[in-house]
Amino acid sequence: MKRFLVIIFSKILALYPFDIDVWLSKRKNFIYSCWISNAFQSVGKGTRFERHIFTKGGKNIRIGDNCMFFRGNIIDAWEHYGGADFSPTIQIGDNCVFGRFGQITACNKIVIGNNLLTGAFVIISDNNHGSFSYSDLLKKPKERDLISKGEVVIGDNVWLGDKVAVLSGVHIGDGVVVAANSVVTHDIPPYSMAAGVPAKIIKTIENN
Amino acid sequence: MKRFLVIIFSKILALYPFDIDVWLSKRKNFIYSCWISNAFQSVGKGTRFERHIFTKGGKNIRIGDNCMFFRGNIIDAWEHYGGADFSPTIQIGDNCVFGRFGQITACNKIVIGNNLLTGAFVIISDNNHGSFSYSDLLKKPKERDLISKGEVVIGDNVWLGDKVAVLSGVHIGDGVVVAANSVVTHDIPPYSMAAGVPAKIIKTIENN
Amino acid sequence: MKRFLVIIFSKILALYPFDIDVWLSKRKNFIYSCWISNAFQSVGKGTRFERHIFTKGGKNIRIGDNCMFFRGNIIDAWEHYGGADFSPTIQIGDNCVFGRFGQITACNKIVIGNNLLTGAFVIISDNNHGSFSYSDLLKKPKERDLISKGEVVIGDNVWLGDKVAVLSGVHIGDGVVVAANSVVTHDIPPYSMAAGVPAKIIKTIENN
Repeated sequence: MKRFLVIIFSKILALYPFDIDVWLSKRKNFIYSCWISNAFQSVGKGTRFERHIFTKGGKNIRIGDNCMFFRGNIIDAWEHYGGADFSPTIQIGDNCVFGRFGQITACNKIVIGNNLLTGAFVIISDNNHGSFSYSDLLKKPKERDLISKGEVVIGDNVWLGDKVAVLSGVHIGDGVVVAANSVVTHDIPPYSMAAGVPAKIIKTIENN
Repeated sequence: MKRFLVIIFSKILALYPFDIDVWLSKRKNFIYSCWISNAFQSVGKGTRFERHIFTKGGKNIRIGDNCMFFRGNIIDAWEHYGGADFSPTIQIGDNCVFGRFGQITACNKIVIGNNLLTGAFVIISDNNHGSFSYSDLLKKPKERDLISKGEVVIGDNVWLGDKVAVLSGVHIGDGVVVAANSVVTHDIPPYSMAAGVPAKIIKTIENN
Repeated sequence: MKRFLVIIFSKILALYPFDIDVWLSKRKNFIYSCWISNAFQSVGKGTRFERHIFTKGGKNIRIGDNCMFFRGNIIDAWEHYGGADFSPTIQIGDNCVFGRFGQITACNKIVIGNNLLTGAFVIISDNNHGSFSYSDLLKKPKERDLISKGEVVIGDNVWLGDKVAVLSGVHIGDGVVVAANSVVTHDIPPYSMAAGVPAKIIKTIENN
């Protein structure tokens, strides 16, 4: 009997179809995209953001055309952290797709080429909280200075799997594939696949 | 003084108890479950979905009885991707529990037995964006064809820890435990524990 | 033309500035913090919670001053699970920062010192679903008993990177840094860096 009532109730709710809900959600995301675009230095045409994105220092962030940011992405360019001042830059090319709940965080410089595809929960960071020195380790981690080992540069047509971390100073070449859950701490040459914690280069197409 | 006001304010807010909020949330999730069930080919009795779930190609997805999907799960069966057509199937048994923000994505076939328990942020995928060939690596990752190395089959009483990835072509036997953050790229025999990136078999109970 | 309309529309939406939205959101989180504080045994002054936090067994959970919980954190102290009863304790010091979508789950005891900083998607757990025995592996994972290998103790000034898992029985010393995506299954001495799945100690500052 209870099961029967549940089925009837479900059929009634089906009067509002799931596909309509998805369609409406896309319209809301379009409006949201128009609004949130104002938070950045520049956003190219056709670029869309799912609700909700968070950003700091948006005036240092340039985003190209036809990008897609799924929900929960954080894009931070730190102008100030603790006592220190930074001149961060985040530059994202065209046709990039960022999976849900990703994070891009810069106090130095992150340059992403065209057509990047990331899975969910990916972090791209050009900084660390403090160095590995005794004096720093005695401080509260959140009060340690942001330290960048160098710019992060990601080429064209790169695919970063789910939960990948790309850390400071790393250059990733064109056409690279990074497997799920990998932590990229060193450069990856073009047309390579990398995997592991830390990521190792599994194979490279040399004579292209 | 400020601290005192905060405490008074907190006490007033406590008039709406947390437990009532949880109770109400469960009622809302029940209604949501009745509604979202319509998006799938079939959903067994007692199966519940937390708000919000996302799905594509739901008519290729069958879900058993008494399953629980925590919030943010994505269940995608790709009938079309790029120029290609697929006949995907996702089949989930009874009593499965999917932790929050998981993803199941198929262009081929994913079969999950009974009683699966997953942690949070788990992905089960039977496909990849493109092959590792020079011609594919020159394309935009999102425009590469979906390629499946084979079906994913997961047995009964399997436990996948937080942030595990199960990739295409993998068969996981009954009673398997996969440790947190592991990436499963090869088959795992029944009653085994696997861990690592990529996952290696740590131990197996042979003479059961 | 369409592009032009989109730009005009964006300019109109900019009348509600992003910074105001962030400011309002912080006010809402303050009110939310006052409310959710009632769900715990004690919460120190200045501690804030972003919407939304989930907790079970809050009366076993003590949280210090000036902590910050970003959104989506789960803090569970299991008094009952399956047929078993537990006396769990979760104790968190001052000035701790928990990144978004973390989880702390205890059926035994978790003690966290001062100034912990975690990235996003971090799990700290003192328990497992069942042992690795044939009789347990035949059961539904969610119906296996919760088993704790021992308390989890985390010292002061510890930094856990994104997606780290800290498992049962682990003691982490003061000033430790755990790299992104690591799984901590063994003790880490003070002033050490650990990384990997499972985490290995990379370096330790001995003569501090």
